[in-house]
Amino acid sequence: MRENKLDLLISGGTLITMSAGMEIIENGYVGIRNDSIVEVGPNQEADRKHRQAKETIDATGCLVMPGLVNTHTHLPMVCFRGLADDLPLIEWLTNHIWPAETRFVNKQMVYDGAMLAMAEMIISGTTTFCDGYFFEDSIAEAARVAGMRAVVGQGFADFIMKDPSAVEKTMAAASRFLERWLSRAPLITPAYFCHSPYTCSPATLVRVKEAAREAGILYLIHLLENRDEKDIIMKRYGRKPVPHLMDLSVLDEKTVAVHCNWLAPEDMQVFADRGVKVSHNPESSMKLASGVAPVPAMLRQGIAVGIGTDGCASNNDLDMFREMDTTAKIHKVTSLDPTVMDAETVCKMATIGGAQVLGMDHLIGSIEKGKKADIILLDMNQPHLTPLYNCYSQIVYATRGADVKTTIINGKVIMKDRRLLTIDADIAMKNVNKIAVDIIHQKLCQS
Amino acid sequence: MRENKLDLLISGGTLITMSAGMEIIENGYVGIRNDSIVEVGPNQEADRKHRQAKETIDATGCLVMPGLVNTHTHLPMVCFRGLADDLPLIEWLTNHIWPAETRFVNKQMVYDGAMLAMAEMIISGTTTFCDGYFFEDSIAEAARVAGMRAVVGQGFADFIMKDPSAVEKTMAAASRFLERWLSRAPLITPAYFCHSPYTCSPATLVRVKEAAREAGILYLIHLLENRDEKDIIMKRYGRKPVPHLMDLSVLDEKTVAVHCNWLAPEDMQVFADRGVKVSHNPESSMKLASGVAPVPAMLRQGIAVGIGTDGCASNNDLDMFREMDTTAKIHKVTSLDPTVMDAETVCKMATIGGAQVLGMDHLIGSIEKGKKADIILLDMNQPHLTPLYNCYSQIVYATRGADVKTTIINGKVIMKDRRLLTIDADIAMKNVNKIAVDIIHQKLCQS
Repeated sequence: MRENKLDLLISGGTLITMSAGMEIIENGYVGIRNDSIVEVGPNQEADRKHRQAKETIDATGCLVMPGLVNTHTHLPMVCFRGLADDLPLIEWLTNHIWPAETRFVNKQMVYDGAMLAMAEMIISGTTTFCDGYFFEDSIAEAARVAGMRAVVGQGFADFIMKDPSAVEKTMAAASRFLERWLSRAPLITPAYFCHSPYTCSPATLVRVKEAAREAGILYLIHLLENRDEKDIIMKRYGRKPVPHLMDLSVLDEKTVAVHCNWLAPEDMQVFADRGVKVSHNPESSMKLASGVAPVPAMLRQGIAVGIGTDGCASNNDLDMFREMDTTAKIHKVTSLDPTVMDAETVCKMATIGGAQVLGMDHLIGSIEKGKKADIILLDMNQPHLTPLYNCYSQIVYATRGADVKTTIINGKVIMKDRRLLTIDADIAMKNVNKIAVDIIHQKLCQS
Repeated sequence: MRENKLDLLISGGTLITMSAGMEIIENGYVGIRNDSIVEVGPNQEADRKHRQAKETIDATGCLVMPGLVNTHTHLPMVCFRGLADDLPLIEWLTNHIWPAETRFVNKQMVYDGAMLAMAEMIISGTTTFCDGYFFEDSIAEAARVAGMRAVVGQGFADFIMKDPSAVEKTMAAASRFLERWLSRAPLITPAYFCHSPYTCSPATLVRVKEAAREAGILYLIHLLENRDEKDIIMKRYGRKPVPHLMDLSVLDEKTVAVHCNWLAPEDMQVFADRGVKVSHNPESSMKLASGVAPVPAMLRQGIAVGIGTDGCASNNDLDMFREMDTTAKIHKVTSLDPTVMDAETVCKMATIGGAQVLGMDHLIGSIEKGKKADIILLDMNQPHLTPLYNCYSQIVYATRGADVKTTIINGKVIMKDRRLLTIDADIAMKNVNKIAVDIIHQKLCQS
């Protein structure tokens, strides 16, 4: 009977499965073999005796739920966390973020930043992230080492595709990036990320989408983050951003549009018809005063919407629990309707909904037999989580990243009892602190 | 030299003093004798040898800041945390909250709820709170036991003052409550709390204000939480809420108006002229879809505004760090201006600003010689708090209640290294869980 032995058994606790039937199993268990969930059910005494596992995690007093899916990040920007806040957008970008990026972004900074960001994410319950930045190769490598599931979007913008030879060089490098990561590590999925319609010419947008389509990968793009993007694109191309992208044939079911704060009803119809996915980043858009995406309307239209934190320069953390709380609250107050974005809907967005956005809902986003074992345990035996009437309410409105006790990705325990097992947090902090010292020094020299 | 010995010494760490000059002292120290701060300064090696203390706390790697001031709570409502969310306001109140209050609110429930709420607050860095509820005597007693600084507002509403004899009985009981707590415990300050202009008749509002004025205590009142309050009061009394209260002479520098989501510019002028204080509760007002208070305009008018969490049925936590983060972000996005409500302003609101609202800024709200020692230590050596460029940004946008390492109130260490020293959290949770079982049972019987 040795072949029936489980690799990992989560025993006890309340299972928030996030399955199609939204089943909640009190005193449940999850059996894991290799990278997958092979058994899920009630933890009955009689059966328990026959269950054997190499490792057992006692989840008594915990909620057991799917790991959270962060659908939009720029991980290395943890290096700029709190560097420049409360500024007008243009001043923030042109005087602070872009100069810092020009001067300090390199392979090593991206790797070090990603490692610290992953420590933060694993500690706060995120098991999958979708990133877009430069030197994405380093992020993929960091994710491989940390054991996180990741969509890594190699960044494109006109400033790196200045002339035909630069275009060919960039596309060739991107193609090599794809080849490397399509087969190298099962948890890493490469993608392409065009920064935005206002920083990418039609030629860039089309060229990258064609390459993405050929490879069958996701195409990420910032869209309608700010109110004035509409005017900029209108002035430049004679049509609004969504019709512009539609004309360029870059909108399809493998396109993830990020932000969409100023998406009009007719745009939503296009998204619904074409299966375009949306990443909603409310905290970043609040802090930058960009706007509030019409998410309740998007969901009514049947558009798949996930939640993202965005980068740490505009949030300033990667805590998906905080982001869920804000997602629920911001739409209630802007619509003056407390019934929109109920806790269950928001929990879906952060798990199975995020998985849908990334085209991974067949693999992750719920605790079900056959799915990959991306699971987190929440320690509910705490004053701020007492009493417990409704699990979804508690997860969205009261639980914080700091309440995550254990994080499992692809069947592997990555954090146990708040101890990181694949990343040395002290080294990760030290490395980023070194970069920060250089950034501060540079700032002091300039001022 | 024994009389020069400090009772408590906080040594090392970065002091965020929140003094008038907003001084930040890197590697500082705070000397405490009895309940007060007697020394503050840089922690120089030469002086350090001569400094003697009965107890020393090493704050290396920490931010040391004044304890947070939560200007509006209903502590016992922790018992209803997550009981009924995402509902229309009237359904929420009439079908869930009010029936639960009618059935379950009693002295013991108030005491048990307050104790759990205080555990949550101390753990997350709040050292002073201002509460309004019924059986406030029990809250005062719980605060005395827990060692928290508190303004305890005995609640008034017409439903408990139905006829002249009930009025006299209620006022006499309130007077005894005052007498008891004005002298009994140095950390407890009694106050009166009229629920709102729509639940209190002009006679009630005036009678309670006169008694409060005579005793020299604060007068708390919910005001303009919802949009329709204006119409209700207009229809009933022929004038809008603020002119209505002005006519009744209840608006002065000892009145704290809570919420004020629909305060008009002319109302703000009244508040500024009369010194009326405001408690801003953004998360509760977002979750209930009540509205967003025009706080940037209030601050421009010179009105003292503090931050509050409101009760746990409408938030659903008492974490002032989360509330600070939301306070900064919500006003940026609603005004589409990222420069409003900068992190420093928000830190002030949660400390010295809150103290001003409660008329306690001569005692608390900053780390300065002569003030009471209400101090918290934040453990900054964590992935989500790395790197550290700007202390205010980090406190508002990245720090969470869970990062509070040590809490000191009135010179006494109340939590050390996340261990509560005056409250048994397990017992507090057990007691509230017992109440919750009864509430669930009652709900099941009704449905």
